[in-house]
Amino acid sequence: MLKVGIVGGTGYTGVELLRLLAGHPQAELRVITSRADAETPVSQMFPSLRGHVDLKFTHPDEAHLDQCDVVFFATPNGIAMQQTRALLDAGVRVIDLAADFRIQDIAVWEKWYGMTHACPDLVAEAVYGLPEVNRAQIKSARLVANPGCYPTAVQLGFIPLLEAGLIEEGSLIADAKSGVSGAGRKAEVHSLFSEASDNFKAYGVAGHRHLPEIKQGLANVLGKPVGLTFVPHLTPLIRGIHATLYGRIKKEADLQALFEQRYAGEAFVDVLLAGSMPETRSVRGSNICRIAVHRPQGGDTVVVLSVIDNLVKGAAGQAVQNMNIMFGLPEADGINLIPLLP
Amino acid sequence: MLKVGIVGGTGYTGVELLRLLAGHPQAELRVITSRADAETPVSQMFPSLRGHVDLKFTHPDEAHLDQCDVVFFATPNGIAMQQTRALLDAGVRVIDLAADFRIQDIAVWEKWYGMTHACPDLVAEAVYGLPEVNRAQIKSARLVANPGCYPTAVQLGFIPLLEAGLIEEGSLIADAKSGVSGAGRKAEVHSLFSEASDNFKAYGVAGHRHLPEIKQGLANVLGKPVGLTFVPHLTPLIRGIHATLYGRIKKEADLQALFEQRYAGEAFVDVLLAGSMPETRSVRGSNICRIAVHRPQGGDTVVVLSVIDNLVKGAAGQAVQNMNIMFGLPEADGINLIPLLP
Amino acid sequence: MLKVGIVGGTGYTGVELLRLLAGHPQAELRVITSRADAETPVSQMFPSLRGHVDLKFTHPDEAHLDQCDVVFFATPNGIAMQQTRALLDAGVRVIDLAADFRIQDIAVWEKWYGMTHACPDLVAEAVYGLPEVNRAQIKSARLVANPGCYPTAVQLGFIPLLEAGLIEEGSLIADAKSGVSGAGRKAEVHSLFSEASDNFKAYGVAGHRHLPEIKQGLANVLGKPVGLTFVPHLTPLIRGIHATLYGRIKKEADLQALFEQRYAGEAFVDVLLAGSMPETRSVRGSNICRIAVHRPQGGDTVVVLSVIDNLVKGAAGQAVQNMNIMFGLPEADGINLIPLLP
Amino acid sequence: MLKVGIVGGTGYTGVELLRLLAGHPQAELRVITSRADAETPVSQMFPSLRGHVDLKFTHPDEAHLDQCDVVFFATPNGIAMQQTRALLDAGVRVIDLAADFRIQDIAVWEKWYGMTHACPDLVAEAVYGLPEVNRAQIKSARLVANPGCYPTAVQLGFIPLLEAGLIEEGSLIADAKSGVSGAGRKAEVHSLFSEASDNFKAYGVAGHRHLPEIKQGLANVLGKPVGLTFVPHLTPLIRGIHATLYGRIKKEADLQALFEQRYAGEAFVDVLLAGSMPETRSVRGSNICRIAVHRPQGGDTVVVLSVIDNLVKGAAGQAVQNMNIMFGLPEADGINLIPLLP
Repeated sequence: MLKVGIVGGTGYTGVELLRLLAGHPQAELRVITSRADAETPVSQMFPSLRGHVDLKFTHPDEAHLDQCDVVFFATPNGIAMQQTRALLDAGVRVIDLAADFRIQDIAVWEKWYGMTHACPDLVAEAVYGLPEVNRAQIKSARLVANPGCYPTAVQLGFIPLLEAGLIEEGSLIADAKSGVSGAGRKAEVHSLFSEASDNFKAYGVAGHRHLPEIKQGLANVLGKPVGLTFVPHLTPLIRGIHATLYGRIKKEADLQALFEQRYAGEAFVDVLLAGSMPETRSVRGSNICRIAVHRPQGGDTVVVLSVIDNLVKGAAGQAVQNMNIMFGLPEADGINLIPLLP
Repeated sequence: MLKVGIVGGTGYTGVELLRLLAGHPQAELRVITSRADAETPVSQMFPSLRGHVDLKFTHPDEAHLDQCDVVFFATPNGIAMQQTRALLDAGVRVIDLAADFRIQDIAVWEKWYGMTHACPDLVAEAVYGLPEVNRAQIKSARLVANPGCYPTAVQLGFIPLLEAGLIEEGSLIADAKSGVSGAGRKAEVHSLFSEASDNFKAYGVAGHRHLPEIKQGLANVLGKPVGLTFVPHLTPLIRGIHATLYGRIKKEADLQALFEQRYAGEAFVDVLLAGSMPETRSVRGSNICRIAVHRPQGGDTVVVLSVIDNLVKGAAGQAVQNMNIMFGLPEADGINLIPLLP
Repeated sequence: MLKVGIVGGTGYTGVELLRLLAGHPQAELRVITSRADAETPVSQMFPSLRGHVDLKFTHPDEAHLDQCDVVFFATPNGIAMQQTRALLDAGVRVIDLAADFRIQDIAVWEKWYGMTHACPDLVAEAVYGLPEVNRAQIKSARLVANPGCYPTAVQLGFIPLLEAGLIEEGSLIADAKSGVSGAGRKAEVHSLFSEASDNFKAYGVAGHRHLPEIKQGLANVLGKPVGLTFVPHLTPLIRGIHATLYGRIKKEADLQALFEQRYAGEAFVDVLLAGSMPETRSVRGSNICRIAVHRPQGGDTVVVLSVIDNLVKGAAGQAVQNMNIMFGLPEADGINLIPLLP
Repeated sequence: MLKVGIVGGTGYTGVELLRLLAGHPQAELRVITSRADAETPVSQMFPSLRGHVDLKFTHPDEAHLDQCDVVFFATPNGIAMQQTRALLDAGVRVIDLAADFRIQDIAVWEKWYGMTHACPDLVAEAVYGLPEVNRAQIKSARLVANPGCYPTAVQLGFIPLLEAGLIEEGSLIADAKSGVSGAGRKAEVHSLFSEASDNFKAYGVAGHRHLPEIKQGLANVLGKPVGLTFVPHLTPLIRGIHATLYGRIKKEADLQALFEQRYAGEAFVDVLLAGSMPETRSVRGSNICRIAVHRPQGGDTVVVLSVIDNLVKGAAGQAVQNMNIMFGLPEADGINLIPLLP
């Protein structure tokens, strides 16, 4: 059994990690830290876990994380970079669900995240944890940067087209919609029920932190920079991201076959039948990304529809998938969940 | 492996049975019938099941249900009573998720359900499938009448008080609130999103079919009739029932201890700490009933709060629990699920 | 034109006052204060008001509220009691939407609200602003305590029964459900979309501040104390309160006729046809309270269903109704709005 | 007072027309027809209208619509074209909220709507009722084709850019999101609360009936055909459309100034301050279209955000606006409503 620790487990990615790890056949949850809620039983904060998680939150100073095999950071940005080196030095492998190790260009990271990076050398070592692209490197990684939610949905949708050189890379458009849990469990007015319910809006049109992450990922796949317009929206659902992706076709191909072949071996990417349109609820609570590819009216614009559960494939589920890969476990252990519908 | 059949799997209790049975270690889903959707792959109607359920819907005439060990009826009222005898005669055990076998008094049933009963003798044989009351009889039952959703939440909340003789039995009040999935997957105006969303209302105040079922269950526990006012309400959530129960105290007792002791051995009833108030989401997707007992202002009114997921403990989950009991399997097999929160 | 001021306009009752007053034919909105948002255009915080409200928020020190005819306090509890005397002395009439002047028994108020009252003499003078009970006194009041949202819905439902002496006054039950806007525009975790959406729960079962207010109001009507169990619940809608009221009948009467006669002259209480069940959306955005009375199964329990929009009849709309009465305007001026459905 | 009739008033555009006309100072609602619900009081079907609309539904055969000044058709497609000629012949002016008269190219209309058109000559006469484009022609029109909801939001967003020749007209993208009321009040499974709530999906990607309408409108403005990819989505809100529009800039200009000038005289188009992002709730229940224009990262893609209430500016409100124009009334009469927020 893997000995697992979680740093910062009081947010939505934290409780989701707990849900997944509590049901994982090869993982033993040893410790979960919280400075503010130390000594509080986890199941008191999250009654859904009663009977499944017996731990209390532990103060970071008493957590003995160095005795774990793997530690997940489910913390705000800027925390993992302070603590990762010590853990790696102690032989612990680290999976960061925040953004500290996602962007290779330190200057870009510092601009978008508004802080000085504490350990650029570890960024260089970190592997970007999108298994469908980097599975081999993840296997041997000491440090995995778990992708953001939007970047997961958007990259998985664009990658087959870019790898095959089918679309103009300078004018990609990603119109993405997220449920409100993507904003986290912070008490903020704009996330209140009375603000976000029965309402729809765009946000971050001028620039969103996931933009450089997506552009980096797509550029890596393509071998050169891409031009991307990324417009995120807030939609009144709890879980779910729906990315509607637009590209201008420059080379003909059987788009359906292309997607099916690209993801033929992937357990967690499901290419739907031609003509399908995936619903976010069809992945609710599961680690699946469902994708459909369309060419409306036979024109020169390809439309890809890509849905994930932002807290699972977009966060905690993908993190467990990475853990499974890193430790040679069956990749679906603990995350082979059936979506909850309705 | 148990050979399992489902009759009528295109509603919400049907798809929920599929979700649970697909993950059950001892059950093999052999056939699921639908007259209207015969030959349609199940996963086409319910994309959430892609990769987990490979069956197509089978026309009832070709279903060979008599080769199953157990058959679930997830059909409208009045169907199971037509087909159950033949299955029992063939040695198949039957669990009816509809109301055909719930009410022992045939005249009462016929009044509330507006049809003539096809097999009163089987009603007499049927066991009411509330494991916390009838576990022993369920074990050997050929035919189980799976309880309704409201009746499950309400009975589990009142039973400890009535068994202990603590409250006046003539003036019980059950103010119950249900999510919209309780109305099923029928296309009806009042269940439309634009009607039911951002709205709250009572319905069936003059009389609801679950009223006689609850009264029968409570009378059986108490040994004499009870007086009950039951007011159901529709609340804008997909899954969940919240029953707020009121009784007038006639004898003093430690209410918290009473509830804890009554359900001490029950895997699927969770008595919360004193002072708690359960949320429906704390049981979302799970087979748990969470209960809290209060005595506001130290007055003579006891208030019990009881929540379930109407599609799980209130329908498909309890049906699988009954199956497990009937076949001597571990009672939690396939239904030991962690609620999805948020 | 009445010169109107609002103190504390950045919450939901504040923005609702703005909506109503902006359309009022006899009121001129002169000033709205906010310490934190002074100089911010109102329509920047609430874009729904663009084109209808041109004001900026004014710092309290520069508000010159003493030049108004009437001032509304849409502030947290404890503010109005600090500022009301000076306004009254300046000849300004005051309507407090918070709780500072609602409870006549100062000790009770101080216990429930956790502070020392600043001006018990003004409490004694204040008129409780439920027009259907106190219209005459409101007319000449200098200071009106606008009722709470739950108290409005609950009192209007119980009053006809208590006035007629039809029900046992010692065992009233009010099972009330509120939309999330009732919790205000404060950033708190439990009001987040991801917490409150697709969820239902009771809260404050041990005691809610509206309990003494309701008990006081009903006792005034009855002429002696009442016994009340009040259980509030949170339901996932933005606006709306649904009170389900239970009483034990002790004297026979034509309940439908009783309610119709009691509210025959009331513009803002609508007694529905016998057998009806009001929906919260049927009053969304309007000042109407819709009520239906039932006697399920002909038993000895009367069930009253009472719905209001908590921000209108439960707050800002009733406040404007009180203003109209105080200044001799047509009672429906500015609040004769048609509910928004769907 | 204008004598007004409504044909088919039991859907959402019908009840919204009733809400608006009931508050209109110059319109008198004379008759509303419904074959299925003849003799039912309107307020019985829509309790929100109690006290505001006293009419019963009238059977079409007894409606005497020819005695009205204006008749609105709030019917399914294909009805208005059967009845319009007789009304026009009787001197009645007609506003069709369905699609019968929107598409000038009869072959295109017949392809998308799947029926033979009954009166192509009236199509030729009909004026497309987008006041911001066709106000002069609407004034004298006998027959107005009220625009679709998506077409209103999309056209108002693209028009300034196309009129000014700023964007490539061959590669327009409209990613549009609609609340569920856009699907009407028909009982259909996909519109059920349990299907549409907590869910997001695209639909009609291969082709939606509003595509030719939008293309026709934009081509008329531009003077030549446009290329448009239009992807509609269903989002879990009752009312609201949010169109996110993408164009490739081919000529530099001050985009903010362009939009402000284009709509400077328009009462019902509100261009937001630079950097703003409109929310659908900021127009809930009102006839306003709010628009913001962005140029993310200073690139060559312009992004326009356009929101309307699909039942008001996208249907009934715009229809009343057209009526006001046709009859020389103040354009805002009856529709100068303040949005309901929260």
